[in-house]
Amino acid sequence: MTDRPSALDPDIARRLRRDGAGLFPAIAQQYDTGEVLMLGWMDDEALHRTLTTGRATYWSRSRGEYWVKGDTSGHQQWVRSVALDCDGDALLVRVDQVGPACHTGTHTCFEAGGPLPARVGDRDAGPAAEASR
Amino acid sequence: MTDRPSALDPDIARRLRRDGAGLFPAIAQQYDTGEVLMLGWMDDEALHRTLTTGRATYWSRSRGEYWVKGDTSGHQQWVRSVALDCDGDALLVRVDQVGPACHTGTHTCFEAGGPLPARVGDRDAGPAAEASR
Repeated sequence: MTDRPSALDPDIARRLRRDGAGLFPAIAQQYDTGEVLMLGWMDDEALHRTLTTGRATYWSRSRGEYWVKGDTSGHQQWVRSVALDCDGDALLVRVDQVGPACHTGTHTCFEAGGPLPARVGDRDAGPAAEASR
Repeated sequence: MTDRPSALDPDIARRLRRDGAGLFPAIAQQYDTGEVLMLGWMDDEALHRTLTTGRATYWSRSRGEYWVKGDTSGHQQWVRSVALDCDGDALLVRVDQVGPACHTGTHTCFEAGGPLPARVGDRDAGPAAEASR
């Protein structure tokens, strides 16, 4: 927990495991296509706002403030569902993303960064002999 | 960076932004269905092993050791592709998951934790009047 006050339901707050800064990672996924759009960070209050406003809201680590996704860019994330993981330290937020999710203009933040060269594994054959992208 | 040595390609290492413990979050997604399976943590060497062995490999924060997903459970994650996000502080690992991804036995870790009550938002109508699951 941080010293930032939060109206988050105490039953939910009790289940969260936070890092030293009171934050936990939140994965934003497009609800219908399954695309992983971005990873942001939330504290208790960001989660509370995400659960109660219909808009995904993060804590900006760089600016040190709440960040309602799309307030500046117009690229809102409308919340469809929110799930906590088995040990309470990660969140999956399924959203309807308006426009590109990434500030670079790509649809997801993982397109912007690009693929890394990876050796592909196969459940039947094991690791492939050749690295591929 | 931590003091754990790593054989990770320096060109990739240079692009990473790590937390105070030298870690960054890695999202595991089923490559064909798009399901988000879990979120794990990697350091440089875990990423190196993930990129070069065909098996998703994490750093276990609780045990303080590398964790080749499935070595104990048999529920391997065979790597299909790996992407870094726009600012280098999160990873998307698309895998072929054998068996359940979660140690609780559910297919994903986000089923195990269960949905949180969320007000649903709509890009045309705005936030819904009723909270729903």
